[in-house]
Amino acid sequence: MITIHHHPDSTFARRVTMALIEKDIPHQKVLVDMAAREHRSPAYRALNPYGRVPTLVDDGFVLSESTAILDYLEACFPAPALVPADVQGRALVAMHMKLCDLQMARQTGIIIFPKRFLPPARWNKDAMALAKGEIEDHLAILETQLAGRSYLVADAYSLADLCYTPFLQFLALMEITPPPAVAAWAARLLERPSARQTAPAR
Amino acid sequence: MITIHHHPDSTFARRVTMALIEKDIPHQKVLVDMAAREHRSPAYRALNPYGRVPTLVDDGFVLSESTAILDYLEACFPAPALVPADVQGRALVAMHMKLCDLQMARQTGIIIFPKRFLPPARWNKDAMALAKGEIEDHLAILETQLAGRSYLVADAYSLADLCYTPFLQFLALMEITPPPAVAAWAARLLERPSARQTAPAR
Repeated sequence: MITIHHHPDSTFARRVTMALIEKDIPHQKVLVDMAAREHRSPAYRALNPYGRVPTLVDDGFVLSESTAILDYLEACFPAPALVPADVQGRALVAMHMKLCDLQMARQTGIIIFPKRFLPPARWNKDAMALAKGEIEDHLAILETQLAGRSYLVADAYSLADLCYTPFLQFLALMEITPPPAVAAWAARLLERPSARQTAPAR
Repeated sequence: MITIHHHPDSTFARRVTMALIEKDIPHQKVLVDMAAREHRSPAYRALNPYGRVPTLVDDGFVLSESTAILDYLEACFPAPALVPADVQGRALVAMHMKLCDLQMARQTGIIIFPKRFLPPARWNKDAMALAKGEIEDHLAILETQLAGRSYLVADAYSLADLCYTPFLQFLALMEITPPPAVAAWAARLLERPSARQTAPAR
């Protein structure tokens, strides 16, 4: 049985809980009480030395990092497929997953962590403004790639789109107005049952 | 024929040139003249909108991001294998590749880019000190994982080890003394022909 250590506020854990829903994978969830700093406890750090969620445990096999977990779930539960059948399509999915982390996920965290969890007096507004600019530059590139398409790769929903979803959730909170093709794509992704069922409370 | 757009000073491009050597893959190289800002040219940005190296072109198929390129080369040229045969071993390789980028590659860049290419007056010493501390914390975790082992996963050289190699090259320049198991692992990796043949001139 697959166990996912998670927190419902975590964008990275949400990627995995969405994949579990998309693929209808039997699993159990363990809430890591981050407010009580359980992610910093020796017991949790034995599973994940970096104190982050999610962590997967599958009959004693321990795996962290959301993208590695998504690849593992895809290999173990290939249907319904969330990657293309061909090598080049799979490579493009891997590229977009990496670009999501490099150009959007990190920058989104810089903005939304303070906005969700810290009083304004503790916000680093310079870092938040820099991150916002980087996201806007990235969305301008995605706009050219998404023009006339419904999804990033091979015009089918894939792990590339799934990886972006938790971060696209917060465009409004970040006061970012996406260009039109990105806006339509974000709406399409956020309407999926796996996204609606995992939407964070804040 | 595979074409790699690269620069010999690039740590990320070096990952790909090392894999081409490890697998003896026929290819041609195109030098991107970064000193002349060719990576910012419209022609190169049409291949890689972020203006980074490496970029792979394979009979018209364009792919960027070193880790995605490594996965693609592994799929197209599976022998000699640089990933384990089993799903769990492959997932661990993917996890370590991601951790290398998150916990070491970015931080190494913050330190070595100024040290290699900028006069000391332009160094951001606070950012460099912070990055150095993050790398040291990460190496302490790797030390526990490498104790008694030769490689990160399944005791065989894999893409996980390969991804670290260009960054381990610069431990001395970063004035980081690695703990003993990490030091032995780094020496082992840097001795490989694929590492020796791609060692940067500076």
